[in-house]
Amino acid sequence: MRLQADIMKRAEAMKDGLVRQRRDFHRYPESGWTEFRTASIVAAALSSLGYEVLSGDQAVDPAYMMGVPATDQLEKAQARAVREGADPDWVDRMDGGCTGIVGVLHCAHSGPVVGIRFDMDCNEVTETDDPAHRPNAEGFASIHPGEMHACGHDGHTAVGLGVARILAALKDELSGTIKLVFQPAEEGVRGARAMAARGVVDDVDWMLGAHFGFKMKKTGTIACNVTGFLATSKFDAYYTGHPAHAGAAPEQGKNALLAAACAALNLHAISRHSRGASRVNVGRLNCGSGRNVVGDKGFLQMETRGADSEINQYMEKEAERILKAAAAMYDVTCQIKRTGGAAGADNSPELAEYLQQTAETLGIFNPLAGACPFGASEDYSYFMEKVQAHGGQAAYMMIGADLAAGHHDAHFDFDEDALVLALKMLTCAAAGLLQQTQTA
Amino acid sequence: MRLQADIMKRAEAMKDGLVRQRRDFHRYPESGWTEFRTASIVAAALSSLGYEVLSGDQAVDPAYMMGVPATDQLEKAQARAVREGADPDWVDRMDGGCTGIVGVLHCAHSGPVVGIRFDMDCNEVTETDDPAHRPNAEGFASIHPGEMHACGHDGHTAVGLGVARILAALKDELSGTIKLVFQPAEEGVRGARAMAARGVVDDVDWMLGAHFGFKMKKTGTIACNVTGFLATSKFDAYYTGHPAHAGAAPEQGKNALLAAACAALNLHAISRHSRGASRVNVGRLNCGSGRNVVGDKGFLQMETRGADSEINQYMEKEAERILKAAAAMYDVTCQIKRTGGAAGADNSPELAEYLQQTAETLGIFNPLAGACPFGASEDYSYFMEKVQAHGGQAAYMMIGADLAAGHHDAHFDFDEDALVLALKMLTCAAAGLLQQTQTA
Amino acid sequence: MRLQADIMKRAEAMKDGLVRQRRDFHRYPESGWTEFRTASIVAAALSSLGYEVLSGDQAVDPAYMMGVPATDQLEKAQARAVREGADPDWVDRMDGGCTGIVGVLHCAHSGPVVGIRFDMDCNEVTETDDPAHRPNAEGFASIHPGEMHACGHDGHTAVGLGVARILAALKDELSGTIKLVFQPAEEGVRGARAMAARGVVDDVDWMLGAHFGFKMKKTGTIACNVTGFLATSKFDAYYTGHPAHAGAAPEQGKNALLAAACAALNLHAISRHSRGASRVNVGRLNCGSGRNVVGDKGFLQMETRGADSEINQYMEKEAERILKAAAAMYDVTCQIKRTGGAAGADNSPELAEYLQQTAETLGIFNPLAGACPFGASEDYSYFMEKVQAHGGQAAYMMIGADLAAGHHDAHFDFDEDALVLALKMLTCAAAGLLQQTQTA
Amino acid sequence: MRLQADIMKRAEAMKDGLVRQRRDFHRYPESGWTEFRTASIVAAALSSLGYEVLSGDQAVDPAYMMGVPATDQLEKAQARAVREGADPDWVDRMDGGCTGIVGVLHCAHSGPVVGIRFDMDCNEVTETDDPAHRPNAEGFASIHPGEMHACGHDGHTAVGLGVARILAALKDELSGTIKLVFQPAEEGVRGARAMAARGVVDDVDWMLGAHFGFKMKKTGTIACNVTGFLATSKFDAYYTGHPAHAGAAPEQGKNALLAAACAALNLHAISRHSRGASRVNVGRLNCGSGRNVVGDKGFLQMETRGADSEINQYMEKEAERILKAAAAMYDVTCQIKRTGGAAGADNSPELAEYLQQTAETLGIFNPLAGACPFGASEDYSYFMEKVQAHGGQAAYMMIGADLAAGHHDAHFDFDEDALVLALKMLTCAAAGLLQQTQTA
Repeated sequence: MRLQADIMKRAEAMKDGLVRQRRDFHRYPESGWTEFRTASIVAAALSSLGYEVLSGDQAVDPAYMMGVPATDQLEKAQARAVREGADPDWVDRMDGGCTGIVGVLHCAHSGPVVGIRFDMDCNEVTETDDPAHRPNAEGFASIHPGEMHACGHDGHTAVGLGVARILAALKDELSGTIKLVFQPAEEGVRGARAMAARGVVDDVDWMLGAHFGFKMKKTGTIACNVTGFLATSKFDAYYTGHPAHAGAAPEQGKNALLAAACAALNLHAISRHSRGASRVNVGRLNCGSGRNVVGDKGFLQMETRGADSEINQYMEKEAERILKAAAAMYDVTCQIKRTGGAAGADNSPELAEYLQQTAETLGIFNPLAGACPFGASEDYSYFMEKVQAHGGQAAYMMIGADLAAGHHDAHFDFDEDALVLALKMLTCAAAGLLQQTQTA
Repeated sequence: MRLQADIMKRAEAMKDGLVRQRRDFHRYPESGWTEFRTASIVAAALSSLGYEVLSGDQAVDPAYMMGVPATDQLEKAQARAVREGADPDWVDRMDGGCTGIVGVLHCAHSGPVVGIRFDMDCNEVTETDDPAHRPNAEGFASIHPGEMHACGHDGHTAVGLGVARILAALKDELSGTIKLVFQPAEEGVRGARAMAARGVVDDVDWMLGAHFGFKMKKTGTIACNVTGFLATSKFDAYYTGHPAHAGAAPEQGKNALLAAACAALNLHAISRHSRGASRVNVGRLNCGSGRNVVGDKGFLQMETRGADSEINQYMEKEAERILKAAAAMYDVTCQIKRTGGAAGADNSPELAEYLQQTAETLGIFNPLAGACPFGASEDYSYFMEKVQAHGGQAAYMMIGADLAAGHHDAHFDFDEDALVLALKMLTCAAAGLLQQTQTA
Repeated sequence: MRLQADIMKRAEAMKDGLVRQRRDFHRYPESGWTEFRTASIVAAALSSLGYEVLSGDQAVDPAYMMGVPATDQLEKAQARAVREGADPDWVDRMDGGCTGIVGVLHCAHSGPVVGIRFDMDCNEVTETDDPAHRPNAEGFASIHPGEMHACGHDGHTAVGLGVARILAALKDELSGTIKLVFQPAEEGVRGARAMAARGVVDDVDWMLGAHFGFKMKKTGTIACNVTGFLATSKFDAYYTGHPAHAGAAPEQGKNALLAAACAALNLHAISRHSRGASRVNVGRLNCGSGRNVVGDKGFLQMETRGADSEINQYMEKEAERILKAAAAMYDVTCQIKRTGGAAGADNSPELAEYLQQTAETLGIFNPLAGACPFGASEDYSYFMEKVQAHGGQAAYMMIGADLAAGHHDAHFDFDEDALVLALKMLTCAAAGLLQQTQTA
Repeated sequence: MRLQADIMKRAEAMKDGLVRQRRDFHRYPESGWTEFRTASIVAAALSSLGYEVLSGDQAVDPAYMMGVPATDQLEKAQARAVREGADPDWVDRMDGGCTGIVGVLHCAHSGPVVGIRFDMDCNEVTETDDPAHRPNAEGFASIHPGEMHACGHDGHTAVGLGVARILAALKDELSGTIKLVFQPAEEGVRGARAMAARGVVDDVDWMLGAHFGFKMKKTGTIACNVTGFLATSKFDAYYTGHPAHAGAAPEQGKNALLAAACAALNLHAISRHSRGASRVNVGRLNCGSGRNVVGDKGFLQMETRGADSEINQYMEKEAERILKAAAAMYDVTCQIKRTGGAAGADNSPELAEYLQQTAETLGIFNPLAGACPFGASEDYSYFMEKVQAHGGQAAYMMIGADLAAGHHDAHFDFDEDALVLALKMLTCAAAGLLQQTQTA
């Protein structure tokens, strides 16, 4: 309990710094796989705190990166990051968009490995120019049109640096290894798979993650037992047919528009699964080139989900067959690209219980009783799945925050008081795990 | 003109016999490829009139027979034919359903080959038991439940025997060869292809055919220039999936019902053809085995048509691909069976003109001026196509007849006065061609 | 425990009688709403044991009967029942197919109302003529082609009469009211709604039901906590369009076949529900009248299900709209008939726990630990829903039985040793509830 | 023939002027209903030549204008036209996009009314910046991004002014009335209906129209008997549903994307028409707002066609019902906007024959023998339909021109030698009609 009090005091003292850091990230948002400036700042900070830093393909397996921008876009983003203050050496190590960073710190004594995940990317949203929007009023709004931290990852990253600082300061009193995982491309669930595949959590015994304001929309609330992460897969399908004049020679066309439409309908008719929840959604359909032309192009953006990874795999397999059969139906070709994915997961019950007790003990939260069903997807689940698979425990927390508008909205903003609450909770929970074991 | 007057007189004298013969055929109807009794009577009559008779696989190429009943059904039909008076020797020669008959007669002088087609099969319809229906009132209704001459082929065959008799009597005055083609399985357009493939019209210079009461529904009318025979193909598709309890394990099913439904919709969406009329129809869909079972069986009956054989081939190719793609869509199998077909055709203009003049000269018809667009399919077109392809001419006539009800209706009956009109027209037309050439 | 021992002894003594009775019912199976002979035997037996008997519209509310056969079929079935030994007086009271029977017996002391449901109808299956099939080998196979007890309801009804006999014998030692509900038309989930709507379980405090061999396929096993009854609705849709010749005038047709096919596809695309399991199945599709005719008739048989009644109502509402919109799509009419339904339900936990203890105490079962998810539908759920809604408790048991073949199979048969096990369990459980309260 | 020689000489002398005028129009292209500058130049020229000029709602019935841009776009286009040299007085009279102009000139003698149609609008295409493209090489390329004369209407309008000039010069030698109809918005077939509805050709006895380079792609060729204008209707459909998170609450969505996809498939399944060609095409489908969101918006762009207006009306009626039924299917709303249309038509045979003879007589063409089937749509057909309906004659010519690239292509350009050929043909044909009748 002495340790907890110490952490609380240190965290309280970092309040202003947290806000400053979050606002800096907010001003320079970077979308998935282009977090060069953000990751450079993270890497430099971890390094100066004594963490061993993994970057580039030490942190990310390029073979598993999904939805990566084109090379020229990556290079432009690298140049921009340097212009906006990033250390060119760190940026260089992230070539190809390998913007994941892992900080590793061995404590004084032997003990378990405790991992914490923080996500760094922004949304592809243009921030509102409404003068009443706080980032505008207080001068930290995004300077990048089409990019905005509208999901709170700026706060997550700032908190991560705070956690890194306090744990480093206390390492002599702790047992085990601290592993801070800074993840790119959480939006579109594109980034975690490549870090998990790289093995960065293979030795983690206790894995923690958190998100601001999702489901818990009031500062001071917290949910420690998040369940029902839906496994998900994201696909784009490109249909290519042959145009023809719809009046003069319709039989010469190969109708990619109808192929895509036919796919959409039949995808939604994939059979339910008796073992648990399944989902499918075609969220975009952009086809054709002119009213009087047989539609020669069809673009379809879709996703599947499942209560667990096996159900999602069933959905995925069905979807892939249907996408191809629709092409055969209209004698056109279909190229399918996998653009994202997440595993299905639930918090490990024992760890969830420990977090609930910690939240209660801290006296700064009003914790939600019972499970908080997520009902959506987060690729943090890939880390959970890996850790749970080798016998470790993993959990995710929803940390309450008053919101100015919903996530992904151009008016999104969250109550910055939640920053220090998250810092206290994550640091105390991690330290407890590193201490608890010491006495075991 | 002397010859014409002679024919008219002979025909008039045969009036009662024609009716008697038609009523005999009507009483013992036989559906496609089981015309054992009918064909035996035809063969025996032709033989006794001095015609060379081709039967069995001399008349029909078994490789091109479509929609043939199962062997046991054929054998039952053979036995029944014998019980109902057919000559067992002739019936034996028709094993396997080869019920086509060709009668060939060489006239006194050399000259052209003139062919006439007569179809012999009945419909799969149960004749009404309405006592007011003439076949009931006068005692010649079908004694075979599920089989009925509801399209007038009983009359066609009776007329064919009349034509055979008169031409045989006049052969010394004629030049060339008479070829009378008695075709099975016109219903479902299943029979002509196999006779055409056997080569029975390969030497025909002038080919004639006729039908009672189609389009021309008044006794005494006639259309001599029939155009727009649509080429057609008939298919059955059998989808096989896997059943599963729709509540307890829907994901274990393979849905053949949805595959068939999906095929039906997409078949009807085959693109129009800019060069001329095209058609597609799914006329039957019988799928599934129970309300709470994922449908494991799907049966679909369809047809395509085209203004010409090339357009129909385009439709056919599209249809085949769609039938298979629908199976892929639902991970089921699909077996496609070709069950019928006809070519596209138009009457040869010169021959049509000759028939029109003949009809006018006879003074017993009120002939339709101009072309009579058929807009449907008849497999007589296979004979037309073959004859026209080698430089011959072919034509089809609609011979008017008052009808009691539409074709294929259980109340169908036609005015028997049309029999002798048809006999006069066909015989005079054929004789004219055989004579005309003599003088050429 | 003395009472339990007494019941066990009485039940054991009735073993042969149970088998005889079951075999009698097996020999004379009657499908839904035509259980005239079965219900007459039940009514007469209950009456002679001193039960007050409710029959006809006292037991069934005709307004809620679903999937009732046509009047002439009902009348034929009534006549057949009398021919096969039914008491004409009882049969008369069941006019219109009101074949439900309720037996009410007031015990010596006041106390709770304990209800038990038994279903009486057979399946529309023709029993196999395989000589190895026991009902054939031992001479009690169905004498009604197309009707067979292939779901064990013959056994349920026989057990019901056994329970009636023992409880009647013990009524002086019991407190409260016994209510034995003999239900028609469980197959197709058509019958319970009409009895529940008539109010026959409105005063029931404890409601019991049971089924042989479903999920528990070994004699001696039992599941006392059945959960996850899916709510369900059954519909038939009749599409009526207008026929037309598919070659000559396709534009004059109104395509009911395509309307039904279009409905089938879009029904299966109804969105999943986030709150729990949903299902939809089109199990039959019979459409069209001939290959070359625009399909003027379409028949579609379907069902929806939901984890609870509310989710099923969502599915039902969606389905109804889609069925109608598909008619509008093809300019045809659609008539929708509701043919069956069941509520969603779970066993009441307290009563399930009591049954589990009873099963353990009896020492004749190897009870399943934990819940047994049903995953299908049973209209017994309507009784559960009603009883639970007014504060009572309801439960359903799966009583294990070795099976010769699966339910609804023409080779179905079950181990008759299960009969006396069921008799013991149900009677002891009911008596315990009637006694337990006495001492309370 | 003296008159013809005079016309030929006058036309030859205008060659350079024609090219200059065409290049001026090419440099300042204006898309449908914004032809303010073009129409002002036409109006001013006609007026100075002595024509009575109808403009604004004298020339166009606003109730029948289709696909009109929004008011602010019209106003911007008006301002731009003035900036680019248009006479503000004329521009003012065209408020609301009423950019049609009619010039009327009464000849010296009484006689028939001869109308000629010229279309003025450009395409919504950005002209290539390829330096080899002649308009770039010679400095007359479009200065309006997104607008380009890629269909030759710049040439049509220039020729129209040439015709106006010569006929005005010859009016004393001619009999009857000249009516020059300058039409806006031919692209998208949006403009002719509103001029025809205004009655501008109600008194026309002989109506002429022409197009460069369509079907006849060689300078010096000409087709005088164009047939098979397909009647057409253009629609846009806007589906509006309700978004929902596809993972967390899919049942709360109303899926406009699936409604549009379902409409597309069923539209293509509209039955063929037995009386003649029909067409349907969904040429664009843009739906949805994000991968994980139930698609709340659906946009569909389509057209129907028919061999005649009646068949097109059948297609239109079917399409409208299907568009609405698809909305009902998914419980979303659908707004349908008519954006264009054309009638079905054929050249009047007598007038076609006259034009053929004229073309032959002139000795400057190599005219196509026989009919030239159009197989597409042009809203000039509305004028043809009106004129033919009141007993007049109408015809359309294809005037050959070598092309640099196909119509509507960013590299389109045509051989300017065709300009004077068209001027000669149209003027001689019109003059002949005005003279011919004089002598009648």
